[in-house]
Amino acid sequence: MINEHYVDMLKERSVIRAISERAAARRAEVGEQHVFDFSIGNPSVPTTHDFTEAMIDLYETESPIALHGYSPSTGLPVFTQAVADSLNRRFGMDYEPSHIYPTSGATAALAHAFRAVTKPGDEMITFAPYFPEYRPYSEAAGLTLTVLPCDPKDFQIDFAALEQAMNPNVQAILINTPNNPSGAVYSAATLQRLADLMRAKQEEYGHAIFLISDEPYREITFDGAEQPYPSKFYDNTLSCYSFSKSLSLPGERIGYVAVNPKAEQADIFGPMFTQISRCTGHNCPGASIQRAVARVIDETADLAVYGKNMELLYDTLIELGFEVVRPGGTFYMFPKALEDDANAFCEKAMHYDLFMVPSDSFGMPGYVRMSFCLDTSKVEAAIPALRRFVTEVYGR
Amino acid sequence: MINEHYVDMLKERSVIRAISERAAARRAEVGEQHVFDFSIGNPSVPTTHDFTEAMIDLYETESPIALHGYSPSTGLPVFTQAVADSLNRRFGMDYEPSHIYPTSGATAALAHAFRAVTKPGDEMITFAPYFPEYRPYSEAAGLTLTVLPCDPKDFQIDFAALEQAMNPNVQAILINTPNNPSGAVYSAATLQRLADLMRAKQEEYGHAIFLISDEPYREITFDGAEQPYPSKFYDNTLSCYSFSKSLSLPGERIGYVAVNPKAEQADIFGPMFTQISRCTGHNCPGASIQRAVARVIDETADLAVYGKNMELLYDTLIELGFEVVRPGGTFYMFPKALEDDANAFCEKAMHYDLFMVPSDSFGMPGYVRMSFCLDTSKVEAAIPALRRFVTEVYGR
Repeated sequence: MINEHYVDMLKERSVIRAISERAAARRAEVGEQHVFDFSIGNPSVPTTHDFTEAMIDLYETESPIALHGYSPSTGLPVFTQAVADSLNRRFGMDYEPSHIYPTSGATAALAHAFRAVTKPGDEMITFAPYFPEYRPYSEAAGLTLTVLPCDPKDFQIDFAALEQAMNPNVQAILINTPNNPSGAVYSAATLQRLADLMRAKQEEYGHAIFLISDEPYREITFDGAEQPYPSKFYDNTLSCYSFSKSLSLPGERIGYVAVNPKAEQADIFGPMFTQISRCTGHNCPGASIQRAVARVIDETADLAVYGKNMELLYDTLIELGFEVVRPGGTFYMFPKALEDDANAFCEKAMHYDLFMVPSDSFGMPGYVRMSFCLDTSKVEAAIPALRRFVTEVYGR
Repeated sequence: MINEHYVDMLKERSVIRAISERAAARRAEVGEQHVFDFSIGNPSVPTTHDFTEAMIDLYETESPIALHGYSPSTGLPVFTQAVADSLNRRFGMDYEPSHIYPTSGATAALAHAFRAVTKPGDEMITFAPYFPEYRPYSEAAGLTLTVLPCDPKDFQIDFAALEQAMNPNVQAILINTPNNPSGAVYSAATLQRLADLMRAKQEEYGHAIFLISDEPYREITFDGAEQPYPSKFYDNTLSCYSFSKSLSLPGERIGYVAVNPKAEQADIFGPMFTQISRCTGHNCPGASIQRAVARVIDETADLAVYGKNMELLYDTLIELGFEVVRPGGTFYMFPKALEDDANAFCEKAMHYDLFMVPSDSFGMPGYVRMSFCLDTSKVEAAIPALRRFVTEVYGR
């Protein structure tokens, strides 16, 4: 018989998807150029020329049997070595290739990380605002996801709330920095304080507490800042990554989990991950994409457009009187709505063909997420619409 | 804390992998040419020229943003349409693209199929000899896997055993044809009888019983025979497929589940599969591989070598006095060992640098699996070693 559990899940519609579908319908109605769609986080820049060349070269010169043969379930050594070397060089880590487990994007990386360091019934903590998919992902692993508030002035961690929420059933803390949807970049001070607190609680409870760090936006930072590497601050860290954003390859599904070599039983993780893959039906990313990404491991697509869009949108929102924290990275901005009900705000904005996502499903009502992975000309074109909307509806 | 469940799983070593590692060690010791490794089922022929050309063309001519953009979680329409058209054309089915759900290989296809039509605590039946990974896959879905004997004279289904084992808790029957490890191709008569029995039991128990048909070897058949399409015989069928073997792309991880359009609630499966993917961390196959495979959907690699190897090996085994059923397909043969204990038989064979897999983990002790996805010259070179082994150890 049909498994009703998955049918029931269909009732919880994704708000992001619903709004993006309304934007698409509106585009079909009035034309692309009249619709300002800030709903979806889909990279808007092309991947690098070198990546394309690497793939063509592999297909033109490698033996097809070697190129398309099974990858070991722990990944192709050429890929895990390239990732380990790159992280070691960039962040002063000491990863061996065996600490890198290739996954089909960050979603699969999280699925492995969650299962490796928790068991059903455990508690995991994360911080609002958070990526709404964390909820089904953690429920599927049998976890209780506790969402704690952040400090709304900068979206860093509210440590008083964390201190109070900690208890021996907490086996993992999940962070996402640079953060979707707030654009916040956790500072070294935040990461240091988090690590200190987690170490103290490990000591107090007598068991490891893992930091699961979701970092798909690691390379998209603004104003010359860089994302401090969370694993550098805390040994029991699993870093989850995807090349979707940095290399603009969202459809190619390639990422990894990196296990800090100083983590408790660090060397058991690779073998454990293969067992988790068996249980979930996961498979390594495709063999040829592993090889191509390995060749361009330190490259990124030209991400400068996101910074430019951020400036433009941020300045506009400030000028229009929004409360908004200047994003440190990602391609999202998270202004406060101009009325308490962000859903009502977003509905009204749609009359001006402005599509934004109300923040309720991000665990922090009253805000809106604006994705600015768009051509800059599109952001520029949206400004008059934003201005009209705010003036006509809110008298600003 | 580390999840001990996955650590425990590490204790159950895969026999196939263990033997293949011994073969690899021996190759390092005495040289490739002296080792006859029948342990691993890794396609030994190159993919098609057209596939390689398709991928190069995509990379050379498509816009990178379009090529590498997110695939909808239900797959790229160009891929699902191509699969549906191909199956409809070849097997007289009426699939719509929405009945095809792309997965990262057959493993992921099975993971989705199991979860869609069963819930934890349910029973699933399969038939010995069976692919050993079915056990962890079904345990991970919370299922009890009941393994029934086959008819050893042709490895078709033992219907008396099936009739007796059926009970209302059975929600699915899992078949694998052409079969790994026996090489058996279920006949139209077998599939018809199975369908009749399942329909009667659906009626009797008042609930759907799904047929999950694992078909990665569908295109590798011998002696001019073809694999009858199981879904054609029984409406409540989920067909699980991988292009690993037919297109010789094992490392590229692309397959699908095809839902029979006449299945109960056939149209709910696509949306359900997306929810299962969310829960397991699964992602669609890479966008570019979906596009490339769509372009060569009806092609196969040159699979003739497998038939040639089969003839050679079968004739040799018969000549040496083995009891062996002539395989109808796959690249496996499943002779009876020359002593009751197949493990002892395989250990002795290793002294002749012959590496075969004892059948205990396939649920049918006393046999060995020989993979003949090798260059024909390798099979030829193995014959004198086989002859010496059988003569010296078993006096034949």
